[in-house]
Amino acid sequence: MIKDMKWWGWGDPAFVFPLDEKPLLWPFIQKSLGLNAATRQTPPVDRASLRLPEPRTNAAFMQAVQGVLKPGQIAGDDEQRLIHTYGKSFPDLFRVRQGIVGNAPDVVLFPESHAEVEALVAAATRTGVKLVAFGGGTNIVGGVEHLDTAAMRVTLDMRRMSRVLEIDRDSWTATIEAGAPGPKLEDDLQALGFSLGHMPDSFEFATLGGWLATRSAGMQSDAYGKIEDMVVALKLVSPAGTLATKLTPKSSAGPDLDQIVVGSEGILGVITEAVMKVHPNPAVKDYHGVLFPDFESGSAAIHEVISRRAAPTMFRLQDADETQLAFSMKAPSAGLSGFIQSQVKKYLKARGYAQPCLMMVGFEGDAEYVAEMRRKVIPMVKKHRGFHLGNSVGKTWTKNKFAVPYLRDILMNHGCMVDVAETAAVWSKLLPLYHAARNVIKEQFKKEGYPGYIGCHISHSYVDGASLYFTFASQQLPGKELEQYYRFKRLITETFMRNGGTLSHHHSVGYEHRPWMEREVTRPGLEALRGLKHALDPHGVMNPGKLIPPADAKTTSAPTPAASIPVETP
Amino acid sequence: MIKDMKWWGWGDPAFVFPLDEKPLLWPFIQKSLGLNAATRQTPPVDRASLRLPEPRTNAAFMQAVQGVLKPGQIAGDDEQRLIHTYGKSFPDLFRVRQGIVGNAPDVVLFPESHAEVEALVAAATRTGVKLVAFGGGTNIVGGVEHLDTAAMRVTLDMRRMSRVLEIDRDSWTATIEAGAPGPKLEDDLQALGFSLGHMPDSFEFATLGGWLATRSAGMQSDAYGKIEDMVVALKLVSPAGTLATKLTPKSSAGPDLDQIVVGSEGILGVITEAVMKVHPNPAVKDYHGVLFPDFESGSAAIHEVISRRAAPTMFRLQDADETQLAFSMKAPSAGLSGFIQSQVKKYLKARGYAQPCLMMVGFEGDAEYVAEMRRKVIPMVKKHRGFHLGNSVGKTWTKNKFAVPYLRDILMNHGCMVDVAETAAVWSKLLPLYHAARNVIKEQFKKEGYPGYIGCHISHSYVDGASLYFTFASQQLPGKELEQYYRFKRLITETFMRNGGTLSHHHSVGYEHRPWMEREVTRPGLEALRGLKHALDPHGVMNPGKLIPPADAKTTSAPTPAASIPVETP
Repeated sequence: MIKDMKWWGWGDPAFVFPLDEKPLLWPFIQKSLGLNAATRQTPPVDRASLRLPEPRTNAAFMQAVQGVLKPGQIAGDDEQRLIHTYGKSFPDLFRVRQGIVGNAPDVVLFPESHAEVEALVAAATRTGVKLVAFGGGTNIVGGVEHLDTAAMRVTLDMRRMSRVLEIDRDSWTATIEAGAPGPKLEDDLQALGFSLGHMPDSFEFATLGGWLATRSAGMQSDAYGKIEDMVVALKLVSPAGTLATKLTPKSSAGPDLDQIVVGSEGILGVITEAVMKVHPNPAVKDYHGVLFPDFESGSAAIHEVISRRAAPTMFRLQDADETQLAFSMKAPSAGLSGFIQSQVKKYLKARGYAQPCLMMVGFEGDAEYVAEMRRKVIPMVKKHRGFHLGNSVGKTWTKNKFAVPYLRDILMNHGCMVDVAETAAVWSKLLPLYHAARNVIKEQFKKEGYPGYIGCHISHSYVDGASLYFTFASQQLPGKELEQYYRFKRLITETFMRNGGTLSHHHSVGYEHRPWMEREVTRPGLEALRGLKHALDPHGVMNPGKLIPPADAKTTSAPTPAASIPVETP
Repeated sequence: MIKDMKWWGWGDPAFVFPLDEKPLLWPFIQKSLGLNAATRQTPPVDRASLRLPEPRTNAAFMQAVQGVLKPGQIAGDDEQRLIHTYGKSFPDLFRVRQGIVGNAPDVVLFPESHAEVEALVAAATRTGVKLVAFGGGTNIVGGVEHLDTAAMRVTLDMRRMSRVLEIDRDSWTATIEAGAPGPKLEDDLQALGFSLGHMPDSFEFATLGGWLATRSAGMQSDAYGKIEDMVVALKLVSPAGTLATKLTPKSSAGPDLDQIVVGSEGILGVITEAVMKVHPNPAVKDYHGVLFPDFESGSAAIHEVISRRAAPTMFRLQDADETQLAFSMKAPSAGLSGFIQSQVKKYLKARGYAQPCLMMVGFEGDAEYVAEMRRKVIPMVKKHRGFHLGNSVGKTWTKNKFAVPYLRDILMNHGCMVDVAETAAVWSKLLPLYHAARNVIKEQFKKEGYPGYIGCHISHSYVDGASLYFTFASQQLPGKELEQYYRFKRLITETFMRNGGTLSHHHSVGYEHRPWMEREVTRPGLEALRGLKHALDPHGVMNPGKLIPPADAKTTSAPTPAASIPVETP
C-alpha cells in the first residue's frame, strides 16, 4: 500500500534509470564533470553494516500510544526507522550512504484517522516527546529530520490517511486526507471524474499534507496554481487543539489562517485533511516543444503570453545548458528521421540556434479549449523566435518527467555532488538574477579548479514574475563533501537574496534555508512566526528546529558529516 | 487635498442624491417601507449642539509627537475629532446623528512618511496611548472607532501618504503609499498608463491601506482579484518594528506574511505602503445588462461561465427585489423609446420574466480581448435564459454606481434603518443560504409587524463559490433603534453561519462581527491570532478591541445608544 523509497537514494527500489537507452547521456555527463573510467566509485555502505542508534523510550508516551493505536500502527524496527530518518537532499543522501543515521526516529507511528492524530499530539504534548510529520519523505531542505537530541523522537507517517473523503461536484472541491500520495490521490479523484492537477517532481511519492506544509508547486501551476492557491480549507492538529479553517471561497474575517498553516512545515501541528479545488479531469493533454535561440527570447515569450491573460497549463523553459542535458537524454534517431533531425539541426544552427533553449508548453482541458489555447499561444511564442517542434517532444517529455531524479543516484555512485536550488523574482529582476547565479557558480568551479555543471529552467510563471530552478553538479571533494556542498549552496542562496530572489519558491525552509529567514521576512516577521509557534505549540513539540531560527542564531557550528545541523550564519 | 465625508452621513457634503430625477424611486421606497407624508422626520442633531468629550492628553506622547511632526500635522480641533470618530455603519450614523460621540479621538495626527509612522508607533508604545489608523473612514463594522476608555486615544489619518512611489513597467507592479484614496491612486496610476482596477463601493473615499487591512473586494474582482490577491509585498509598522514582506511573485519561505497583515484591521500595526499588481489601463470598458427570469438562472449562468475559465471582468447579479429597486431608479422613458420599453416589458412578462433579475456583465481590456470575451460570454449567459439588454443599461449603471450609498442618508432622515450584510459560500451552499437569509429577515419583519425590504446581489464570483450581498431596511422602532438593528444583524449573521457562509466576505470584522469569530476560525484559530497580536503588539497599543474577542468574551453588555461595544455573545 505505502510505497517507500529506497533508503540510500531517490524513488522506487525496483526502478533503474535507463542509462543504456540514452547513449549520449553518460558521455555528456563525463565531459561536463570531468569523469572517466578511472573515476572512483562511491557506493552506499552495506545495509548490513549500518547501525541505528539505540532507540529511546518515553514510557508514558508509549503507554498512551498503545491506548490509541493497534500494534500494526507502531513500528520500532530498524527498517522503518532508517527509511524515516531523512528527506532526499544531497546532504541527506550523502550521510545515509555513509551510514550516518544518528538522527533516526525512535519509533514510527501510522495514524489512521484525524482523531488518532489528535490523541497522539495530545499525548506527545503531555509527555514531552518530539513529533515530526512524514509524508513521502521527498523534502530536500531537512524538513523531516529529527534535530532535538534529548527527548524521544517520534515520526508520524501519515500515509495511511489517504482517502478522498468527499467530493462536491457543484463547487469543484474535494476533501482529502493529508497522507494521500500523488498517484493514489489522482487515481481516486479521476475515478470520480476530477483531478487536482498537482504534479511536482515529487508527485510519485509526496503527499498532499507535505505539499501543503511546504507550499509545493506542480508542473501545471500556471493553470491550477501552487498548492496554496488550491486549498479552500484545512484541519491542523496542534498542541493547542484542532484548528479548522472555514470552507469558503474567500473571506475577510481576519488574516488568512489557511495561509498561516500552509508553509508551516509541521512546526505548528499536523495537517490531517484539506478541502482542495479540483477540476474535471481534462479530456485532452497536449504538450509541445519550442526552441529559442536564447533564454532571453524564451523568457520574453512566456512573459508576453502570461500578461495577455492567455496562460497555458504549463510553460517550462530550459536554458542552453539544461537543453543540452535534455537533448543528451534523447536516443539519436536512425534512418530517415535521423537524417531529417540532423538537417533541422543544421538549419537551426545556421539561423542562430547554435545553443538552443527548449521550451515545453502544455495545454489541458476539453478539446475545444485546448485547440483555442494552442491557436492563441503558439503564434505568440513564434513571434519571439520560437521554433515550433510539434508535440512529439512533448510526448517524450511527459513520459520521462519523473525519471530524472533517479539520475542523481548514479552520479552519487560516481563520487559526484548534485543538488538543486530554486527561487522566484519579479520579471524586472529575473534575467539579471539568472545570470548572476549562473556566473557565481561557474566562477566558483573555476576558482576551485574542477569542472562543473549548472543548468536552469523557468517552471512557474506569473503576471508579475517567474521562478528559476537551478541544478548544479561536480565531483565531490573527498573528505570535504558537505563543506563543499554548503559552500555552493550558500553562494547561490546569497546570490538569490542579493538579487531580489525569494529564499525558496517551492522547496520550503526546513533547516537548510533557516539561516536566511531573518533577511527574507525581517525581524518582526520572525517575531510573528514565533508568536504563532508559541500560541499553537507552546512546549515545542512539533518538528523542533525547523523554519524559525533560534533567537540566538548567529553562532552555531559548521556542518560536518557527524553534525546534522548546518551553520546558522549565512 | 483630503476629501472628508460629511460628519452625519455618507460621502461628499456637496453631493445630494438626485431623488427628483428618479420619480419612481421614492414611491417604491414608500411602498416597501410603509412610509407616507405623515412619517416622522429624523434629521441629525444640530452641529452646534454637538459636544465632544474633553480631550485627554498624554504629555509624554504629545511631547514626542511635537518632535516628529510639524504643527500642521496635529489636529486637536473638534471638527477633525468628530470626522474621525466613526466609520459609516448604521449604528455609527445613528449615534453621530443623535450627538453620541463619546468615543471621539483625543487628537488626530497626519503622518507624511513611513519614518514618521515608525516614530509615532514607537512613541505610542513607550507612553501607553492607543492608536487607530484611519483611511477613508468608510468601514461599517466599527473598525476605526476607539474603544479603550482609559488611555489617550490617537487616530492616525494616513491620507497625506498617498503617492505612487514606484512603477515597475516590466513586472506590472506599483509601490503605493497606504493612505492613497481610490481616485488619487487611480489618477496617478493612469497617468503612468496603468490601473489597479480596485473599485469597491467605498472607492471614492477609502484608501489602499484600509482596503488591505480589511480584505476589500472591488466590483471588478472577477478579473483582478480581491485586494489580497493584488498585493505582492507590504510594510507594516508594528510596535515590534517594521515588518517588510518580500517582493516576490510567490514564495515557500514559511507562512505567507502578506496574508497575515492583510485583514489584520490595524491590530498588529499600521500598513504604510504596499507593492500592488497593476495592469495597463484598459482601453475599452464594455458593460452589458442581461435579464433573467429568476435568481437561479442568473446564478447558474455565472457559475457556468466562471467554470469554463472565461470569467469576464465583472459579474453582478441582482435578485428580483433588488432589480425592482434598480429599475425604480431609472427615469421612465417618454415617446418612442418609452413605447418600445413598455412593449419589451410586456414581451418579457409573457415569457416568465414577471420578476426579472438584472445581471451586469463587464469586459475590460484592449478592444480585441473585450470583443473576444463578449463573443464567448454573452451566448453562454443567453443559454441560461438570459435576455440581453445591450450596453446602454451598462452605461447607466457605470454612471450611477457610486451614488447609491447616499440614499441611506435620505432614509435615515425619514426614520429608517438601512444596512447591509454580506457573506460568501461554495456553490453547493449558495442558493440555500440565499433563500434562508432572505426568508429569515422577511419572517422577522412579519413577526415584528411592519413592512421591510430585503434585496440581494452576487458581486464576486469564483470557480468554487460566490459572495452574497444583502441590503435590508425598515422603519426604525423609536427609542429602540440599535436593539432593533442588532436583532436583524444577529439574525442574518446567524443564518450565514448556520448555512455555511463566511462571517464576512469583504467588510471585515471590527467589533460588529467579533462575537462570531470563534465559530468562524475555531478556538485554536483565535489562539493563533492572539499569538500574532502578542508578538507584534505586546502592550495592546494598536486598535484595541477589534477582530479578536477578549478571552472572557461570553458576558459583555448589550448595545445601547450610550455604549459603543455591542454584545459579545452572538
